[in-house]
Parts: sequence; C-alpha cells; structure tokens
Amino acid sequence: MDKKWLAGVDIGGTTIKLAFITFNGDIVDKWEIPTNKNENGNEIPGDIANSIQEKLNEHNQTTNKLSGVGVGAPGPINDDFGSVYVGINIGWKNFPLKERLQDELSLPVFVDNDANVAALGEMWKGAGDGARDMVCVTLGTGVGGGVIANGDILHGVNGAAGEIGHITAVVENGAPCNCGKSGCLETVASATGIVRLAKESLQTTEIPSVLRNEKNLTSKLIFESAAKGDQLAKNIVNKVAFYLGLSIANVANVTNPQKIVVGGGVSKAGDLLLEPVKEQFRHHAFPRVAEGAELTIAKLENDAGVIGAAWLVKNKSGE
Amino acid sequence: MDKKWLAGVDIGGTTIKLAFITFNGDIVDKWEIPTNKNENGNEIPGDIANSIQEKLNEHNQTTNKLSGVGVGAPGPINDDFGSVYVGINIGWKNFPLKERLQDELSLPVFVDNDANVAALGEMWKGAGDGARDMVCVTLGTGVGGGVIANGDILHGVNGAAGEIGHITAVVENGAPCNCGKSGCLETVASATGIVRLAKESLQTTEIPSVLRNEKNLTSKLIFESAAKGDQLAKNIVNKVAFYLGLSIANVANVTNPQKIVVGGGVSKAGDLLLEPVKEQFRHHAFPRVAEGAELTIAKLENDAGVIGAAWLVKNKSGE
Repeated sequence: MDKKWLAGVDIGGTTIKLAFITFNGDIVDKWEIPTNKNENGNEIPGDIANSIQEKLNEHNQTTNKLSGVGVGAPGPINDDFGSVYVGINIGWKNFPLKERLQDELSLPVFVDNDANVAALGEMWKGAGDGARDMVCVTLGTGVGGGVIANGDILHGVNGAAGEIGHITAVVENGAPCNCGKSGCLETVASATGIVRLAKESLQTTEIPSVLRNEKNLTSKLIFESAAKGDQLAKNIVNKVAFYLGLSIANVANVTNPQKIVVGGGVSKAGDLLLEPVKEQFRHHAFPRVAEGAELTIAKLENDAGVIGAAWLVKNKSGE
Repeated sequence: MDKKWLAGVDIGGTTIKLAFITFNGDIVDKWEIPTNKNENGNEIPGDIANSIQEKLNEHNQTTNKLSGVGVGAPGPINDDFGSVYVGINIGWKNFPLKERLQDELSLPVFVDNDANVAALGEMWKGAGDGARDMVCVTLGTGVGGGVIANGDILHGVNGAAGEIGHITAVVENGAPCNCGKSGCLETVASATGIVRLAKESLQTTEIPSVLRNEKNLTSKLIFESAAKGDQLAKNIVNKVAFYLGLSIANVANVTNPQKIVVGGGVSKAGDLLLEPVKEQFRHHAFPRVAEGAELTIAKLENDAGVIGAAWLVKNKSGE
C-alpha cells in the first residue's frame, strides 16, 4: 500500500497543477495543463484523466499504482458529494466533479475547496508542521482562507467555513467587495486591495512619495518602497497590517490555533508585512490565544495545493 | 447500558448544579449545592461526590447505576487531563478536577469548560436541535461562547477556542476589558457592558429618557424602556445589536454554522434584541454564510450545563 502513489490535482482559473506524491508527502513528479473553459468547463474531468494516464505511461505505470486522486477546486464544495456548488472563474454550477473523475479513472476521488487543500498541504508538509489547529490566510488577487481544527478542515453547513477574506475588517465606510457586502478583509489585504488603498492615499493626501510617478502600481512595488523608507508606502503597509492583524486575531479567538500561516503572492513581502501583523495580532487577540499561536509565512508556495489534495486521499480513503 | 443514568455537574461561582439524566437526555432528578470556596476550592470534588452518593441513596441506587460523570467547570480546561488551568472565581490553578473526582467516585469523569458544555446541552436537547455546526453566545455578567464544529466542541491548542466575548468589537476607543485588552464584545454586550453604554449615553447626550431618574440601572430595565419607546434606550439596544451582529457574523464566517444560539440573562429580551441582531448579522456575514445560519434564543436556560455535561459522558466514554 505505502508503495503506491497519491495523485494531487489543483484546479485554477488558468492552469491545472498535477502531481504524483508518495505516502510521505514527497513529490515524485509534477506538471501543469491549461484550464479548458470550453462548454463551461465540462471537458476538465476528461482532460485531467487523460493527462494522468499519459504521465503514468511515461513512468511505465497504470492506474493500479495510484491509491486515489485528490482535487482542490475553486468555489464552495458539497462535502457529501464532492460536487462544486459554484466555480465562478470556470463556469461550473453544481458540477459533479468527483463523480465525473471517478467515472473517467475508476479510482477513488476526493474533492475539497482550493484554499482548504492549500491549508492541508501547509499542515502536512509546510509551515503548519503537523499542527492540529491551524489557520491559513492566502493573500493573492483575493483573500482566501482555510481553517483546520482537530486535524481536519472546517467545512460548515454549506461549505463556506474559512471565508476569512470576507470578515468585515473595515466597519465604517468600507469599500464594496465582489461578494456583495463592504469592508471585507479582501478589500484591504489582497494585492488588489493594497493597490486601491495606495491610490486612495495618493489622491487624498499630499505626502511626497516615489509612488506618485508610477503608472503601473503593484502591491510588490508598495512593499519595496516601504522597505526603502517611503512614508506613504509605510503608512499603507501599517494600515494593511492593522486590518490583517485585527481580523486574524478575531479568527484565532474562535479556534485558538497553534499556527497561523500567511501565504499567497503578497506574503512574499516576508517580515516587512509579518512583523507589524504580529504586533496588531497580539494587541487584538485574547491573551491566552495570543500565547498559543505562532504566526509564520507559508512554505510550499505553488505546491501546497497538490500536496494538500494528496493528503485528502491518504486520510479520507480509510473513512 | 441504556437503562443507566448519566450524571451532569455544572460548577458555578456560587452554586453547583447536579442532575441524573437518561441516555435520551431527559432529567430524572436535579438539585443544587453551594460552591465551597474554602481552601481555594479544594473541597469541591468531595462535596460533589458526597452529594451524588446521597442522591443515589434517596433513589435506592449505587454508583453502578451511573455510566459516568460529566462536568462543566469555569475557566480553560486541559483537554487531555481534564484539569482546570485557571478557575478565577473559585481559586483553582492547575486543579486536577477529573482525577480527583474519579478517585472519589470510582467512575469515569469527563470535564469541559462551562460555556462549552452549555453549548453541547443546547445542541443535544435545546435550540441547536442536533445541528452539527453551531455557535453559542451566552450574554450574562460576561459574554461566554462555545463553538461546535462537526458535532463536537472546538478546544484549540490550549483550551481557549470559542472566546467570542473577547473578539474585538469596538476597534477605536473601546472600553478596557477584564481580560487586559480593550473593545471586547463583552464590554458592549454583557449585562454590565449594556449598563455602561447607557450610563455613557446619559452623561454625554441630552436625549430625554426615563432612565435619567433610575438609581439602579439594569440591562433588563434598559430593554423594557426601549420596548416602551424610550429613545435613549432604543439607541442603546441598536448599538448592542450592531456590535453583537457584527461579531457573530465574523465568527460565522469562520465556521459556517447552521444554528447560532443566543443565551444568558440578556437573551430574555427575546425578539427585541434578536431582530436587530439578525439584521446586522445579515449585513455583515458572507452571503452564503448568512443563508446557512438560523439565529435563535437558547431554550434550556439553567439546565443547559448539566445536560451538556451528561452529553460528554454519553459521547466520550466510547472513545
């Protein structure tokens, strides 16, 4: 059994990442295919199955080598059926992903939300370091979240647990969010949100800043300018850290995690972001909760999804 | 086995509630004894054991009739050992409650935090109605919380999960809280906090109010005055509902519960409190989370603790 491989699949809006992974969580091989959005994503299960078959051929193996297939998919997932309620970027609606993939490959398939499998990946082989109580926040174009309690992902009653990006961080006069409400953490801590905050500050203040000459403002540039001492950029970083530290503290008061892992493109700012976030976290968390938690940057980057998806197979197939 | 009883014990600062309960969750007998704070609460396990023995005698039974003893105790609990880290009102510090009670009674003992067992009680026989994902908020002198996910209580890494009362609700210029930080939900939604808000408003505004003549202001009186149309009292109720709805929404974004149960003395205000809280909740929760959750008032009142403590015995003894 342990000599078998686990297949991990991470479905994104533009590419699908795939990997064969050992029961110890080591990557044997990894590759990517483009996300085929024809017919509202209807061809995706076939594409994944064909790609796995081809790669098995290259390794002179058959599907017998695989213990099963784990999948991270965008959108809330029906935990009982492994179907995707809504996958906005792909066009899925109540899409029977698990069933379709099982039919194609004749292997057990386990599906969870992409932010959740990334959290499981970090728990298993990354910054979570095996912690059974953990919170993951992914700061990318949006803000995603995955909450692990007692060693497993929280799903909630309709697959929407861990929606940390949509915690109300700005209580008064918050910016509108894609989700329909306003002031969500996503509006101030995603790459897009950080750029929005900077543009707002450039317009409403007279603070001199190197950012005033920039035509293509990015969150990366804002952090770089802050590191060089630019006052306006430093103000923005402090603002982001305030909202992020406050929101993470309020999440931690609910689940009392051992590890809080910050990932995604924005987290590449490293300590420049993490240190002020830690300070705000300690200020806003219940003292006992603050004592118990370690804040850290994610380790696995793009591999978190496929590794977490493989974890699903390893841990759910016995249930 | 099913003809046996479960013993439920709920240890409070002034009284200890006890009950014999069937495996269906029905109360056979319930009674109370005073909380004995001599020697920093050291005599409490003996008091509980003696009281259970006496009551068994009255029923012409021995400890053989009991499947075990469940206990709700104040303060964070070490989940592995059933010891109480700190029980401030009683004087306990790292008190081996489970071990001491087991020695006294020669029965299996299961200990959890009092707010957590109250939540389990509501889940089993009260307003939770068997929901596997649930949030309980208890609005009393303080604000307590219990969070149930996948049918069991969240404890977190050091027993501090579910500390909903210490979520930061007032981000700027919040009042100091007993926990050491400021702006906690407890400072604006506990009975004490509501009275504080009213006093503040009486001092800083000129709004005419029947409360201006009251020497002994209580949260009950504030709700009664609001029901009669008093503008200042109505403003206070709206303020409480705003902070409570916002905080509950942020908790729900983490765990996506099916039921949110509001209990404690302040919850006796009923719809006068619940309706504006629901409105604020819907405004601040992620739409899918708002759809999935039903807000309701707790049903079991003072019995929630002993019933939830009995649930511990029923569900943990097989593990």
